[in-house]
Amino acid sequence: MSRILYDLAGADPARRFSPFCWRTRMALAHKGLEVETVPWRFTEKDRIAFSGQGLVPVLVDDGRVVSDSWAIALWLEETYPDRPSLFEGAGGMGMARFINSWTDAVLHPGVSRLIILDILACLGPEDTAYFRASREQRFGMSLEQWCADREARVQTFRKDLQPLRITLRAQPWLGGQAPNYADYIVFGAFQWARSVSPFRLLEADDPVAAWRARMLDLHSGLARSTLGHEV
Amino acid sequence: MSRILYDLAGADPARRFSPFCWRTRMALAHKGLEVETVPWRFTEKDRIAFSGQGLVPVLVDDGRVVSDSWAIALWLEETYPDRPSLFEGAGGMGMARFINSWTDAVLHPGVSRLIILDILACLGPEDTAYFRASREQRFGMSLEQWCADREARVQTFRKDLQPLRITLRAQPWLGGQAPNYADYIVFGAFQWARSVSPFRLLEADDPVAAWRARMLDLHSGLARSTLGHEV
Repeated sequence: MSRILYDLAGADPARRFSPFCWRTRMALAHKGLEVETVPWRFTEKDRIAFSGQGLVPVLVDDGRVVSDSWAIALWLEETYPDRPSLFEGAGGMGMARFINSWTDAVLHPGVSRLIILDILACLGPEDTAYFRASREQRFGMSLEQWCADREARVQTFRKDLQPLRITLRAQPWLGGQAPNYADYIVFGAFQWARSVSPFRLLEADDPVAAWRARMLDLHSGLARSTLGHEV
Repeated sequence: MSRILYDLAGADPARRFSPFCWRTRMALAHKGLEVETVPWRFTEKDRIAFSGQGLVPVLVDDGRVVSDSWAIALWLEETYPDRPSLFEGAGGMGMARFINSWTDAVLHPGVSRLIILDILACLGPEDTAYFRASREQRFGMSLEQWCADREARVQTFRKDLQPLRITLRAQPWLGGQAPNYADYIVFGAFQWARSVSPFRLLEADDPVAAWRARMLDLHSGLARSTLGHEV
């Protein structure tokens, strides 16, 4: 039996910076499932063509292929019901979808405008060209414009974190009294930033920063021990 | 045994417009618990002084007094464990706190800037004076400034609903395959608007509007049958 995760990497194969792959890595660790992570680059579509699509994470678990972080989380929960739960009930599974949607619609674009140029600097030549072209098309502007004036923009970003902040003032984890997939969804965005950029996203006294530090320590420091910047 | 909910009302006692009270009313209905709702006005602090604070909802359940919508939801879940669950597990209880925080930090301010002047028109003279003074102090501007240009502002409001929209494209309820307290938290904001204002918050083809219609039908049309505007 083998378990392999195709995991987005930079020019340095140790640099693992996909927020979606981090959701999956933390979920696997939560369930106590060992996995071999294989570095994969944006332009290596051929290597994951067997999954029927061109994005990571792709999990190959004893021959079964699952892609898309949300689908992988549901699949892990169903396949390994005796392991610690990612959602802790049907309510958690439903509500995690909202947290996933907020992260995709609000948090990721916010982080993106602060760190995209730092990502670019971490890629090999072929990926650099692909990344610039695909993202400039998506954003409708140059990456330099997308990331302009980040010192001012980070203030707006921090305001947008208010729902997180209020929650983490009331309880230690987004999942409640213990971390679960809700935490992994949101943490992926911070680990994305940490893995490529020295830019400071959070004030030191922000409850979100204290939570991020707890997340970095989880599962024997899995995220903290991976190549990245001090935060 | 009696169960009484002090419920914010306008000059017309049938106009029940507190988003927080609506969270509680829907939660009580979810658990199949009958309740007598008592109309209460902003300036009747004396009538709920027994609760040790001055805001509604205040629930008096067989002599036990509980205030604050979140505290009431937790208390109902603990006190009536054999009734349908509001959170469906520990994960749901944890994650509902994030949805509660998003609603308080993003959704309520957004709705407020579209409907505050309509609320004012629903109040008796004493409450009108109280409401204007307290809200103008909170917002740091006149209510007319706070609500200026709502035709333009509603476009931003609709963009801010994107996390809801993405979620409701993927599943019928915020709670997942069935409604739960996550739905009641968010719905309170829409029922708040509906109960005082004819202003159109949503486009007809918005998945959020279809969900709102399902919410209005829940529990024998509890919310739809209460005094309000067509939406």
